[in-house]
Amino acid sequence: MKNIVVGQSGGPTSVINSSIAGVYKKAKELGVEHVYGMVHGIEGFLEENFIDLDDYLKDNDNYELLKRTPSAFLGSCRYKLPKIEDNEEVYERIFDILEKNEIDAFFYTGGNDSMDTIKMLSDYAKAHDKKQLFMGVPKTIDNDLPITDHCPGYGSCAKYIATSLKEIIRDNASFSKNRLTVCIVEIMGRHAGWLTAAASLAKDETGEGVDAIYLPEVEFDLDEFLNRVKELAKTKSSIVIAVSEGIQTSDGKFVCELSDSNRAVDSFGHKQLSGTATTLANIVAKETGLKTRAIEFSTLQRAASHIASLTDINEAELVGQKAVEEANNGKTGMMVTLIRESDKPYVCNTNVFDIHDIANVEKKIPLEWYDKENKQMKEEFINYAKPLIIGELLPIFKDGVVQHLIRK
Amino acid sequence: MKNIVVGQSGGPTSVINSSIAGVYKKAKELGVEHVYGMVHGIEGFLEENFIDLDDYLKDNDNYELLKRTPSAFLGSCRYKLPKIEDNEEVYERIFDILEKNEIDAFFYTGGNDSMDTIKMLSDYAKAHDKKQLFMGVPKTIDNDLPITDHCPGYGSCAKYIATSLKEIIRDNASFSKNRLTVCIVEIMGRHAGWLTAAASLAKDETGEGVDAIYLPEVEFDLDEFLNRVKELAKTKSSIVIAVSEGIQTSDGKFVCELSDSNRAVDSFGHKQLSGTATTLANIVAKETGLKTRAIEFSTLQRAASHIASLTDINEAELVGQKAVEEANNGKTGMMVTLIRESDKPYVCNTNVFDIHDIANVEKKIPLEWYDKENKQMKEEFINYAKPLIIGELLPIFKDGVVQHLIRK
Repeated sequence: MKNIVVGQSGGPTSVINSSIAGVYKKAKELGVEHVYGMVHGIEGFLEENFIDLDDYLKDNDNYELLKRTPSAFLGSCRYKLPKIEDNEEVYERIFDILEKNEIDAFFYTGGNDSMDTIKMLSDYAKAHDKKQLFMGVPKTIDNDLPITDHCPGYGSCAKYIATSLKEIIRDNASFSKNRLTVCIVEIMGRHAGWLTAAASLAKDETGEGVDAIYLPEVEFDLDEFLNRVKELAKTKSSIVIAVSEGIQTSDGKFVCELSDSNRAVDSFGHKQLSGTATTLANIVAKETGLKTRAIEFSTLQRAASHIASLTDINEAELVGQKAVEEANNGKTGMMVTLIRESDKPYVCNTNVFDIHDIANVEKKIPLEWYDKENKQMKEEFINYAKPLIIGELLPIFKDGVVQHLIRK
Repeated sequence: MKNIVVGQSGGPTSVINSSIAGVYKKAKELGVEHVYGMVHGIEGFLEENFIDLDDYLKDNDNYELLKRTPSAFLGSCRYKLPKIEDNEEVYERIFDILEKNEIDAFFYTGGNDSMDTIKMLSDYAKAHDKKQLFMGVPKTIDNDLPITDHCPGYGSCAKYIATSLKEIIRDNASFSKNRLTVCIVEIMGRHAGWLTAAASLAKDETGEGVDAIYLPEVEFDLDEFLNRVKELAKTKSSIVIAVSEGIQTSDGKFVCELSDSNRAVDSFGHKQLSGTATTLANIVAKETGLKTRAIEFSTLQRAASHIASLTDINEAELVGQKAVEEANNGKTGMMVTLIRESDKPYVCNTNVFDIHDIANVEKKIPLEWYDKENKQMKEEFINYAKPLIIGELLPIFKDGVVQHLIRK
């Protein structure tokens, strides 16, 4: 491979930049001349907006800083390629740019929608006898890509959720029963409950954690919820409940739609959800008279690289390296996957898998890992998730504030 | 001093437990027999609900863990003592309990309202020739106690705000100009802007930070705000604005009251504010058509001990030690203060001051430290705040999650 290009797409994570670091490192080991970075993914690619990663990453201090920088160092996008038959020109333009810049391989880090881009481009290349290679590098806090055991980005988000929820539990328990507060915490994950399930990792030293967990995969029953809060309020002096932003009632309505604010739609046509915790906190206050508080982790959960999981950072780097290694072996139209060999000790290897079986497929949480009666995650989930949040990579501080690598 | 008692009151912080640690350590050095902790402050005291801190803190590992535990280890309360003339019985009960348990000194960590408790009790002691001593230990994220240079609890909250805002800025900048998002972040501080001002510490390596800061001390002009957002949107691809929960319009209305949700009142009669960022995000979206996002740090900012400032932790411990030392010298009716000797290098000593000049007085931010035109903090504030967020105390992790000391 003479030159390669790497881009980032979709919602950012705390560790997506470690995958860029991994792509760069392996490519340089293999003698690749230029490792280009697309600025704002395929959107920037179409405008030939590239940077040469040598300009930043030849310096090892910068390499280390990049691994500690959240969000998309290269810039991200939410650009959906048109169907080939609808607009062949875009594809022709992409391959022209690749040829003109002597780029032999194209790497894209992202989730379901981004893997669709890899699928379309590798399909087009196959149909038109193009020699360029296309590899997907998994990245999503949602952990909802199929085939792979888990997705880089998930572990760090889960670690943030566990840590912050544990601190919220401490805070909420500071007053006595006469000042009981029902704290409802809203966690990302539109359709898959992997992140909300990570609330179960917030258990404290006495073995007590969040009082209930509501996953988006399970129909939300408002009466059951209110009864549970009333029951808990009889004995407890602090109540903390974790809910997914995507919980829906039996008629398919999102809980946040029970209140009347208007919601926008993103460019993939997904409804923008928020306000689930606020909606529920208002309902609880009205129906029970209890003091309530709504907390939304919002983008903090996907950007908090200062508390990222070292396991996750290392795996994000590893999948980037693996993608380059396999492209160098001639592979294309595939995504790197993580294969767990064992939980205790945790051993995880990488492999690759046909992108057609991955793009646009959403992996939900196995419902047998959820105790519906008690609204808690079972041991099976804990065993799955715990290894993914282990370890820390100390941030680099200056004047008391974390440092990041920033594109000029 | 034979025995002493220490309690926590008001909203918790990340480092209030370090003051308990400091009180315990110094008392034991001075040969105090029992260091009792009031469970839930004066509320628990009145029920003789004490623990003996030896049961936890004789073990040095526990002592270290306590310094890393957020919120009130002993439990907090929001109990306002009645005026002496309104209910002398309460005071008689308090002194009976002190005498019965041979408690010679009473230490209370808290903010304005809690210092009022120390004032009333020391006044009563003086009027009734009681020998017990009463000392205030400053603690408030709001940093609004007078006389003292700053308050333990503030530095860690400021460090959380700077770190998290910097990560939010990264996240918000991940997309290109065609997906510009106006992100409005709401920060605690009802009347004093110290915490919101800490948003200025989030500046990145290019020197860019939040785009505007709105303090509660300055009248909020919605038209000016909307015009600023429109101007910024002309050139920028990411906008992040920090607002205090307490900003008010010229007619004295809190911004969050511009929307119509109902607000509760706490037991000191303060209005419970929230939803300022959401209110503004909705107004911006409606008036400009721009995509908006509201983020509220909520209790995360006061509970995030995993990113606490080491300077703050050390000073919290120090003020606890100083309170005991001065009580041992016979001082009463006073609060420990922090006296800054210099900024560079940062040197800070402790002293004590008459509680009558402190209780119920709120220290606001000097407006000459605020650039009203550009809505940014000036160098004077940066020089003041920066030393307070320096240093980290590595959390103790187990299975990837931070560990805390929890009362049995």
